[in-house]
Amino acid sequence: MPATDASDEPRRSAKWVARREAIVDTSAHVFAQQGYHATGIVELCQVNGLGKGAFYHYIGSKEELLAAIHDRVMDEVMLGSDRVAEAGGSPSEQLAMLGDELLDVIHRYPDHVWVFLHEFPALTAERADRFRVRRRAYERRVEAVLQAGIDAGEFRDVDPRLTARAWLGMHNYTYLWLKPGGRLSARDIAKPFADIFIRGIAAD
Amino acid sequence: MPATDASDEPRRSAKWVARREAIVDTSAHVFAQQGYHATGIVELCQVNGLGKGAFYHYIGSKEELLAAIHDRVMDEVMLGSDRVAEAGGSPSEQLAMLGDELLDVIHRYPDHVWVFLHEFPALTAERADRFRVRRRAYERRVEAVLQAGIDAGEFRDVDPRLTARAWLGMHNYTYLWLKPGGRLSARDIAKPFADIFIRGIAAD
Repeated sequence: MPATDASDEPRRSAKWVARREAIVDTSAHVFAQQGYHATGIVELCQVNGLGKGAFYHYIGSKEELLAAIHDRVMDEVMLGSDRVAEAGGSPSEQLAMLGDELLDVIHRYPDHVWVFLHEFPALTAERADRFRVRRRAYERRVEAVLQAGIDAGEFRDVDPRLTARAWLGMHNYTYLWLKPGGRLSARDIAKPFADIFIRGIAAD
Repeated sequence: MPATDASDEPRRSAKWVARREAIVDTSAHVFAQQGYHATGIVELCQVNGLGKGAFYHYIGSKEELLAAIHDRVMDEVMLGSDRVAEAGGSPSEQLAMLGDELLDVIHRYPDHVWVFLHEFPALTAERADRFRVRRRAYERRVEAVLQAGIDAGEFRDVDPRLTARAWLGMHNYTYLWLKPGGRLSARDIAKPFADIFIRGIAAD
């Protein structure tokens, strides 16, 4: 599955890709500040210092831009969970590492995550489907770690889906207050959150 | 502190108040569907079956409507936490009851909670301040229960503020999937969530 709409076009140069990513990042900031629907193409051209023709050379539509912001978040989140799977360890250790990685993405991409969590209903058709599939793929990784812990007798017999949602809520919701340069780093939060959650589901 | 902007005007009839509340509820649904900024006064008049003059007879401005939606959520959440305080019980019991009440509000007011969580940055000046004060007042109630549990030796020596945020995230985030008529009721979720959280912070 392609990571972004753009990767359907294989002959783009590295320079083109880098410029496109910069446009995605700048636009994520604008969407986070004033909302997706309230931001027009004219304004997106202005903030990115591009004419309309140049803008469409990089991004096919405003919705493609929104999808690219979603993919940036999901790419990072999935890369993090790949690192966790490669690292191995007990289900408790895996869950703690997943939390570390997720909070790190939220901390590094506050604008993208804000747009991801607030504007996903604006994605339509195939883009909405792709987002649901990617989001569900990540949830399944969390559920698989929970199930492995239950099977190993390390965790109580909790409902993996509901418990994954509790875990996701606890971590994702930090997007409201976890900011670059803030008092708390992602690491400061990951440890106490893991302590609460892993004790909370530990076998008696 | 008045619960809504409207209560600054004490001589309104019960009929006026009821009609205003219906407008707030209908408008919350529209804002949740298409966003606050994307919804104009003309459309709000249409969905509420009102002319512009009649609309302004009930609501002073679009932002006052947004504030009223916020107050509906906070009124319900604070009423719930009043009931918990009156019921008494151990800190663990208090925290479980707070979760019950919070999930019940999220379940009963999906549109209002969606707007509350997504559109709060659109509130300005005194309204933004009032919202911050009300939201913080609720957080402090959760923190006070946590602190009481720590003082009583029932909970570990966790950071009450960070732990309250973890608890709020776990519960609030259910707004994405906890829907009236859905497979799970608020009560179905409150018990396993309380089990995770209270075990998670229990003293060793």
